[in-house]
This record gives sequence, C-alpha cells and structure tokens, in this order.
Amino acid sequence: MIVVMRSSAGQKEIDGVVNRLEREGFKIHLSKGVETTIIGAVGDETRLSTAVAVMPGVEKVLPILKPYKQASREFKNEDTIIDINGVIIGGRELQIMAGPCAVESRDQILEIACRVKEGGAKILRAGAFKPRTSPYSFQGLGEEGLKLLAEAREKTGLLVITEVMDGESVELVAEYADILQIGARNMQNFPLLKTIAKCEKPVLLKRGPAATFEEWIMAAEYIINGGNNQVILCERGIRTFETYTRNTLDLSAVPVIKMLTHLPVIIDPSHGTGRWELVEAMSLGAIACGADGLMVEVHCNPSEAMSDGPQSLTPENFNHLITKLRGIAAVVDRNL
Amino acid sequence: MIVVMRSSAGQKEIDGVVNRLEREGFKIHLSKGVETTIIGAVGDETRLSTAVAVMPGVEKVLPILKPYKQASREFKNEDTIIDINGVIIGGRELQIMAGPCAVESRDQILEIACRVKEGGAKILRAGAFKPRTSPYSFQGLGEEGLKLLAEAREKTGLLVITEVMDGESVELVAEYADILQIGARNMQNFPLLKTIAKCEKPVLLKRGPAATFEEWIMAAEYIINGGNNQVILCERGIRTFETYTRNTLDLSAVPVIKMLTHLPVIIDPSHGTGRWELVEAMSLGAIACGADGLMVEVHCNPSEAMSDGPQSLTPENFNHLITKLRGIAAVVDRNL
Amino acid sequence: MIVVMRSSAGQKEIDGVVNRLEREGFKIHLSKGVETTIIGAVGDETRLSTAVAVMPGVEKVLPILKPYKQASREFKNEDTIIDINGVIIGGRELQIMAGPCAVESRDQILEIACRVKEGGAKILRAGAFKPRTSPYSFQGLGEEGLKLLAEAREKTGLLVITEVMDGESVELVAEYADILQIGARNMQNFPLLKTIAKCEKPVLLKRGPAATFEEWIMAAEYIINGGNNQVILCERGIRTFETYTRNTLDLSAVPVIKMLTHLPVIIDPSHGTGRWELVEAMSLGAIACGADGLMVEVHCNPSEAMSDGPQSLTPENFNHLITKLRGIAAVVDRNL
Amino acid sequence: MIVVMRSSAGQKEIDGVVNRLEREGFKIHLSKGVETTIIGAVGDETRLSTAVAVMPGVEKVLPILKPYKQASREFKNEDTIIDINGVIIGGRELQIMAGPCAVESRDQILEIACRVKEGGAKILRAGAFKPRTSPYSFQGLGEEGLKLLAEAREKTGLLVITEVMDGESVELVAEYADILQIGARNMQNFPLLKTIAKCEKPVLLKRGPAATFEEWIMAAEYIINGGNNQVILCERGIRTFETYTRNTLDLSAVPVIKMLTHLPVIIDPSHGTGRWELVEAMSLGAIACGADGLMVEVHCNPSEAMSDGPQSLTPENFNHLITKLRGIAAVVDRNL
Repeated sequence: MIVVMRSSAGQKEIDGVVNRLEREGFKIHLSKGVETTIIGAVGDETRLSTAVAVMPGVEKVLPILKPYKQASREFKNEDTIIDINGVIIGGRELQIMAGPCAVESRDQILEIACRVKEGGAKILRAGAFKPRTSPYSFQGLGEEGLKLLAEAREKTGLLVITEVMDGESVELVAEYADILQIGARNMQNFPLLKTIAKCEKPVLLKRGPAATFEEWIMAAEYIINGGNNQVILCERGIRTFETYTRNTLDLSAVPVIKMLTHLPVIIDPSHGTGRWELVEAMSLGAIACGADGLMVEVHCNPSEAMSDGPQSLTPENFNHLITKLRGIAAVVDRNL
Repeated sequence: MIVVMRSSAGQKEIDGVVNRLEREGFKIHLSKGVETTIIGAVGDETRLSTAVAVMPGVEKVLPILKPYKQASREFKNEDTIIDINGVIIGGRELQIMAGPCAVESRDQILEIACRVKEGGAKILRAGAFKPRTSPYSFQGLGEEGLKLLAEAREKTGLLVITEVMDGESVELVAEYADILQIGARNMQNFPLLKTIAKCEKPVLLKRGPAATFEEWIMAAEYIINGGNNQVILCERGIRTFETYTRNTLDLSAVPVIKMLTHLPVIIDPSHGTGRWELVEAMSLGAIACGADGLMVEVHCNPSEAMSDGPQSLTPENFNHLITKLRGIAAVVDRNL
Repeated sequence: MIVVMRSSAGQKEIDGVVNRLEREGFKIHLSKGVETTIIGAVGDETRLSTAVAVMPGVEKVLPILKPYKQASREFKNEDTIIDINGVIIGGRELQIMAGPCAVESRDQILEIACRVKEGGAKILRAGAFKPRTSPYSFQGLGEEGLKLLAEAREKTGLLVITEVMDGESVELVAEYADILQIGARNMQNFPLLKTIAKCEKPVLLKRGPAATFEEWIMAAEYIINGGNNQVILCERGIRTFETYTRNTLDLSAVPVIKMLTHLPVIIDPSHGTGRWELVEAMSLGAIACGADGLMVEVHCNPSEAMSDGPQSLTPENFNHLITKLRGIAAVVDRNL
Repeated sequence: MIVVMRSSAGQKEIDGVVNRLEREGFKIHLSKGVETTIIGAVGDETRLSTAVAVMPGVEKVLPILKPYKQASREFKNEDTIIDINGVIIGGRELQIMAGPCAVESRDQILEIACRVKEGGAKILRAGAFKPRTSPYSFQGLGEEGLKLLAEAREKTGLLVITEVMDGESVELVAEYADILQIGARNMQNFPLLKTIAKCEKPVLLKRGPAATFEEWIMAAEYIINGGNNQVILCERGIRTFETYTRNTLDLSAVPVIKMLTHLPVIIDPSHGTGRWELVEAMSLGAIACGADGLMVEVHCNPSEAMSDGPQSLTPENFNHLITKLRGIAAVVDRNL
C-alpha cells in the first residue's frame, strides 16, 4: 500500500506509521518530497490499510494490490469452461438461456420450453422463487414451480437455471436445477454466497445494480474461495439516473471481466433494458463485444405475463433474434 | 393507472385496452386529444400495469397510486412510536445508537459500551455477523459476539442493536438483541424481510445503497404486512459518482420519509460519509432536519479497529458531538 | 397532462384545478375513484404542468406528451441523412471519425491524418480548443490548431470535425471545420446551442455525462428549432458509480435514439471507456447495435500524447479494429 | 505519483518508466515486492501521469498530489471572506439569497424583493437569462430583467445576484449585478470561467449535477487562477438515481469544502430538492452543518410562477423558515 502523509506531518508521525507497518511485516520505502512524504509498504494489505488511514499525520492510503486472487486472470490464465452434461459455457459455443420471468403454470412453462428449444436455446430460465419489490406482487410458485421446471427439462432436454434466494433453499433448488442463479439484489448476500460455495452445481452470479466490477468479482471470490469454482458472471444492467430504460446495460463488463478474470460472462438484455424493443440490438452488441452467451426473457403472451411482460420477447421475436445472432457469432468466431 | 396510447393507435387498439381493463374491474375514463388518446383506469393496479404496457398501441402506462399502503401516512396519520423497555424511538427524545463497527473482544466491547453510555447513548450498536466485501476480511465473532453484547447490556443497561444477515439466524440474534438491524445490502433480501416480520422485536431497516425512497418503503411494507409494525428506517448514504465520501448521505430522506410514512427515521453519518471528520457536521444537520436519532460508530482506538476505523469517532469526539447536538435538539424541540 | 389529486382534496380544490385548466384552453376529463380523483387535461402542457403541481390539493402532475417535437420520429419518420461533400452520415455506409484527442503539432496531426485515412476513416477528429478539468493542463493550440487541421484536410481529403466551446468561436471554427462538435460538458450550454443553430455546418452533439435521453434530445431540439437540422448525436459514456472505466458507455443509446428520433447516432468508445484495451470490443458492440459510425481516438505515440493517451489506439490497433468492424458491418447490412 | 507495474513487467519496462520520469525531473523511489514493483515519483505530476499510464508494463498510475492549489486550505489557511458593500459572505453572519427563479415582470420582482427583505434576506436572487431544458420554455427577460433587478436593488437596498450564461454577457450582467452566478450546467464552461476570472465582481459557482468535489474545486481554481479570488461555492444537489426529489442535496459538501478549501459555501435547498415542502428541513440542516448561507426560491404566487413553482416558498413560508433558522444559527455561533 502507499501511505501519503499530510504536508503538515512531522518526523514523529512518519516514524509512527513506519514502525507500525514494519511491526506488521511490511517492507518499507520512504519518499520525502518537498510537499509531502510518501511511504510505500509492501505486504499483506487486506486489513491494515483502513487502520493506517486513521493514524496521526496520514492524509490517505492507496491500496496497490487487487483484493481478489482466485478469480483473477493472474491466478489462472486460461478461461474457465463449465461443462454441464455436454452443454459448454465459456467455450467457443455461445449459450442462450431463455424462458419466462416466472413459472406461472404447467401449460405456460411447457409451451415456452418447447418454443425456446426450437429457437436454439439449450438452457431454460424461469423463476420459482421471485424477488419482488412489492409484497403484494406474485411471489412465484415455489417448490411447485421447481417441479414444473424439472418436468420441462425432461420433456425438452433443456438444462434448467433458476434463482435461489436464501441459504435455506439452496439444497432444494439444487435438487431441481442445473445452474443456480444468484439474483442482482443478492450479489452481496454473503451467507448465501457461502452456502452456495459448498454446493456442487454451477452458479450464475448477477451483478448488483450498484456494484462495481471489483465488488462483483469479490462476490465471485467468496464462492470460489468457499470451494465452488464453477462461477458464471452475468451483467444485467446497473442503476443510473436514466429512467427511460429500466437499468443501464453496461456492455463494457464483457471485455473488463474477460481482462480481469478467467470467468465466463453472460449478458441479460431483458433486465438490462426493461424494454423488449431494445433486446435484439443489445443482444447483438453483447455477442459482438465478446459475451459467452445471453439470458433472455421469452413469453408466449407478454401482455398476460405475471411479471416482466414489457421486457419479454415473443417466441417469434426470439427466433428472429437468434437468426441475427448467428451472423454476428460467425464474425467473432463463435458458434450458435 | 393512466394508459397513454401511441398517436398511431387506432380504435381497435383503444378498444382492446378498454375491454381488458373493464374485464378486470377497472372504471374507465377516456380522453381523446388531437395528438393522443389517454385512458384513465381506476382500480387495483398492482399487477396489471406492466401487462397493459405491452398491449398493442400502448405507448406507456403511468401508475397513479402509491404502491405501499400500511407504511403510508395516509394509512396511519400519527407517528409510530416504539417503546423498548422505556427507551422511546420516534418520540420527543432523540436516541443515539453508538458503538464499534464490530464486536472484537470482551474488553473492547465492555469499555466502549461504558464510554458511549457516559456520553449519552441509550443503545449500543456493534456487529457480531459482519457483511464484508472481501472473504478475506474479518467476518465477525458470530454467536460469541452476541454473548458479549448481552454481557455489555447487563453491565451498562444499554439496549443492544445488532445486524442479522439471514433468516436462519433471526431467532438466534433475537435472543440477544433488543433491536434487529437489516443492513443496507439486505434491504431487498425478501426471505429475510418475511422471516423478521414474524419476529416480535423492533427492526431497523437500512436504506439500500441504490434504493429509491419508494423501494425502501416497500421493504418496510414487507415487514409490516408480515405482522411486525415496529419498523425504524435508517438512512446511511446512497451510492453516487462521488468517491471522496464513502457514500452520499441523503439527509432529504428525513423530511421525505416523515411526509410519506409514519415511521421513525434514524441517520447513520458514519457509513453515510466514511470519514470521522465529517460525522459531527452531518449529525448536527441530521437532527436539525428532523431525524429521530443517530447511529454512530465509536471506537476507543480507531487505528486498531478491525473494520471501519476511518469512520469511527473516539469517545472524546463522541462526547463533543453530543454536547453540540443538545443545542440543536433544544431548537427543534427535541430532548437529548 | 394528468393531475392526481390528494385523497384529502375536496370539491373546492378539484374545481380550482379544473377551472384553471379550462381557462387555459385544456379539455378536461375527470375520473373520481374511491381513493383519489384524477384529472386528465389535454392541451399544451409545456409551461402549465409545473404551475398546476403547486395548486392546493394536487398530489402530482404527470406529463403525457413528449417535450420534443422536431427531433422526434413522429414528426419525421425517415432517417435524417447528412451529406458532406459526398461523405454520408446516417446512411448505409458507416463513418469512422478518428484522430488524436488534440492537435499537438504540425508533424503529429499530418502523420496521424495519413494513418487514419489509410485505415479507413473519412473524417479526422482532433481538438484545437480543449475543455480541460485543470487550468494547468494543455488547453489546445487554438486557431493555430484549426489551421493545421485545414492543412491535414488538404493533404488527405479527410473531412475535419473539431470542438467549438463557446458562441464567440462558432464562426471561426466553422471556417475551418466540416462538422462542429459540441462537447459533453456543453450539451446544455444553451447560448452555444442557439448560436450553432444559425450556422450551416452539421453539428455533432455529445451526450452530457449526466444527461437523460430526453434532455439530450431536447438539446438537439434547440439546434433544429433554431434552424439547423443537420444534427448528429454522439454517445460518449455517462457518469455512474463505476470508476474502473472513465465513463459507462451506454450502448442502449443507439436503439433508443433510433426509436425516438430520426437522427444519426455515433458512438465514442474512447471517452466511453477511457481505456484503449476496451475500445475494440465496444466498437464492435456499437456497430452490431446499429450505430451509424464511431468516433475513435488514435495517436501515433499514446505515451507521449498531451492528453487522453490511455484511451488512444495506435494506428496498428486502429487498423486491426477496422478489419474486425468490416465483418460486423456486413452482418448488419452496412458498408465500411 | 505512484506507478504500479504489472506483475509480468520485466526490468526493461521498469527501466523505461524510471528513465522517463528521471528525464522529466522526478525523484524516484523504487519498491520491489514479490508480487509487484512500485515506483514512487515526486515531481510535477500534472501532465505526465496519464502519459506514463500507457507505457509498457504499467498497470496503473496513482496521483498523489491534489490537482488544485490556490483554492486549497493548504495554500491559504484562513477562510476567504467576501465583503460586498458591507454584506459579508463567509463570516459570522449567515447570508440569505432569496427571490424568484426568474424575473417575470416589474410588479413581480419589486413585490418579492420587498417581501424577502422584510423576511431577513440581504441579497435578491432572480434570473434574467434562464437556462431551460426546452427551447419552448420561458427563456427569461434578458437585459430588461437586469434593469428590473437594478430597480429592485435601488428600491430595497438588497444586493443582486443573477446568472450569466456566456462569456459575451459577462460585461453586461456585471453592470447590473453585485454577484455573478455560474449555473450548475456551466460549472465546466471553461471559456466562461476564464472570462469571469477577469471580472472584479464576486462569483457564485454552483456545483455541476454530476461534478465531484474535486472537479468543482478545479472549476473554482480556474477562476482564482485567472485573477478573481472572490469565489463562493454553492451546492444545489447532484443527479442520482432517486427521482422523488429533483436532485439529491449533498450536505456533506459543506464540511468537505470547508476542510479542503478556504472558500465560503452556500446551500440551495430549492434546486437541491425541487419540492418546497422539503426546503425548510434542508435549510435547517444546511446551517447546522456549517453552511455560510442559503439561496432560496421565493415567489408570491408559486402556482403562477413561470418556472420552478413547485420548489418556491411563499413569503409566509420564507418568514417561518427564517425564524427557525435564527434558532439554529445561534447554536452554531452564527448570526442571522
């Protein structure tokens, strides 16, 4: 870490910081300038940096090292590739996770599963437990929804991804799902991250609406450090001042995450924009940027959907999207 | 709700919307202008508004009613006052919740408890379960920390507030704490909200770093709707583009929450700024704005604190703050 | 507009609002519900909506109409196509505006002009007047820089785009430039917008770092309303909480602007990310999303650049980008 | 500055950076750790820091010094106090700048001037040139408005503050006004800052809606560096994701600016909230936090105001506010 002393700091304050850092095993390099003194300290900066910031005479402390390790590209240079019964995430083939926001009924989920499979998806997405802003909104079918998802898998051969909202349900959801999804609001639900880390199923970790890249990667680090390295990151839009779109979809997440980590990155243009009319353009953009796949909401009848209708594609629009995506995929050396 | 039709919408699309809304029991008022047709629809708009937004010819749907009910000032005009063994929150007396970020050791918590009590606090704050961005940071003492908090309460007579991070721990934490805190990152942890709603202890609900006032009130609505109406709201800063402060403390939360709801509002200037030098000014501002109290981090030796040292007051600074606060309290007709 | 009355509003308050609106020529539709009364008012809502919001008994006023007219897709359905000496912006051909952040010297600008021309650009970008956060930073060569740009145009046949920072310089800059750029910080510099509206040169209007789509389109409306309809919009990233990238490049601007307006949209991935390593990925994404072109910073020696080195491509990287872009362009039916 | 090298950087890259920095006159301190090499470089970092960031092997560059000098508390320890004909800004006495958003007519401005004077204001605020989002909104009375302001000053003895929107009008506005206001949207209008720096009138510089504290202080540095050190800073709310309030009023600006600079700080709770019901609470908070005064919108008939009605106090509400403020002022050792 770098400790910048106040210009008013005297020798006593400088010695105080230096002694403390040396006592904790840091190797020290001192730079005295005209305006300020800078103390470079090389060692384990995890905890000490905030403490040093409050020592007398200290103006600020700048951390040097990245706070994440196992998720980083430096730690593991090759891309993480996740193989779920032959469906590969993070490889040359793009993966499309498609389906409705929520499981609403047996007919609904079976029909949509067939349609997205025909369209080209290999993974069915749908929520059984739904995080809803209002206690008065539809909260999902719960375990019944999970059973319907399993039935849809059996009928179609699609893999199933669905959200798990708390540690208590991890075991239950893992029984039915092929990939566990951690929703954006739970990105820093640390007990959930710790529980899911002990699970053997792959995890899709959505970026929190106000999470920096670093915080997001740190959340992945919780899961990897806990023993589960099958982590897929999913950008789904961040919260900004713009209200025309539901969120601001940050496609720069794709090259940034690829540069900083070895994990696959998926884009969710449905939550990322909140408007189905924008989903196709943003999907094409995502794949051109290098994303490993998409998570897209598709509903046979969006105006009857119990949630997220405005951001859902019809199966026809979904088919149109896939056709266009194939062109882009070819140009960026991916299959679909 | 108000449905604004596209200027290109024909009679068929208008009829489609009107028929659907009437079928669902809405009372309809139609306004045909030169540029657009507007459909006013009075009824239960909880679910239908997003569905209607996707109907053919619809440009946008504007909800009219507030989505929260039991938390609203219209629902209950008098202020909610919470009495915990004679310590009143939301009444004429201001309440100060003070203590370290985390319980670190028996000596640490007992000493700081005595000091904040002497300073004027009636409630001790400290974390036993700590939500930390990094898996490598100190995660709290867990149940051992809860026991030390209980010991501090016994020694000092202070009430204890501490954070609960998941539904599974609610019972355990409720055994030791007088007030359960829901942290900012868990504001929309809906399973936790539902579990805590069944608990008989008062709940302090922190505003999420990217939560609107409405979303925050909706989270309170979850708790009230679930059966627990002892909800205290706590503003602790929102995430903005400014990085000099850890968060941007939004003091307008005080008059806004007082206007929209009947719930008490507490300000946390420590997390709200991340810098102890700013805590006194923001505390004075908070009380002048009408807050019902403060939650402040105090540590006997901030530069040795295991977390949040830079935002912690020393006991001396805390005493100074309380003295100043008393002056402001008197002017705004509050006691301290 | 829609006026939502407070539930406590009586007949007198309702009449007050209705009478005022009728007096101002609005056509009124009244909806009385159990919880609230809603007044639909069709007419010119430009000014009155905020005034009505303060009338007794009014809870809120919701505007219905879009505040912009001439920039809107409804006003003019066909895409605006701008032809500058045969270089077409907004048509089938993609346009690349490339060059250094600033004109630094004769050698620098002439060399880079040749290189970007070879690479495939038809428009040279470079600043002569530079808006810099610090008064101590390089402020641009001023008129001398404009002359060098003109020389580069003569030598290469490239068109020149450069920024104009105030109304006083519009005439001077227009003398040398083919396209006038309004920088992000000046998006709501209304005197500048009004002056430039009287100029006959095309204008590239960058989105302000904290501007909503609507505010951005309103700024374009100022220029069109003032008499200049050759407006090109340029997304260059918005300010968010994320600090790893210089800004958050909002690619959803492309389909949104195409939907709401008839104006061409250009993406600036250099300012949008602030990191040259991200420029290629975001450029490919931008074109796949439907952008009409790019504005990219290119410098022969980024580590000697007087500004924006970290976000500048070398000519080699620029050539690599163009090659990749050609593949994407073909898929989305564009030429490059 | 601190240069952090990539872990993959070899001796050649390290030497490259060291040599360049030494060539430019920096004093170098090298720290080689196991994971990374850090180069501390003491010297003038204004320009070079971004250039070094692009050198081979460099991971990141951390600036050490504050980029502003003359505005800083280190440069001048005593508070800047501005005396305008005996009205002192930045001293023990609080100053209230009150009046309508815009000069609308002779009667309007004369009446409101009398009322705010009676209430306790010593400075009249009102716009003659109005920056409006829409070209179709009222744009102000222009020079006619300035003349009416001068008449109001003559009648009441109030000082006049009004906005100047471009360099061309500085001379004209300075002829009529006692304090020149730079609006939030113009905070980084550098030509305007440079022109106003040559003017002898005090300047009130509003914080841009997306400006960091550092950028705001840098804008003040432009004015001071250009020769005018009578700069007053005014916080008026920043743009965030919250839409209930027009902006998010960042009261932490008060202690932060007092800590980092020697300049007076004024709070504008009218723009800061956009709702008159919140103005009193936020005004009390602002003064308790240590602000040197307020800028408040007051209109005799807000529901007839041509702009900003919803955030304007009536004269009665203004009187009520002042009475309450006097109590707070006394507690924080200020006069009103």
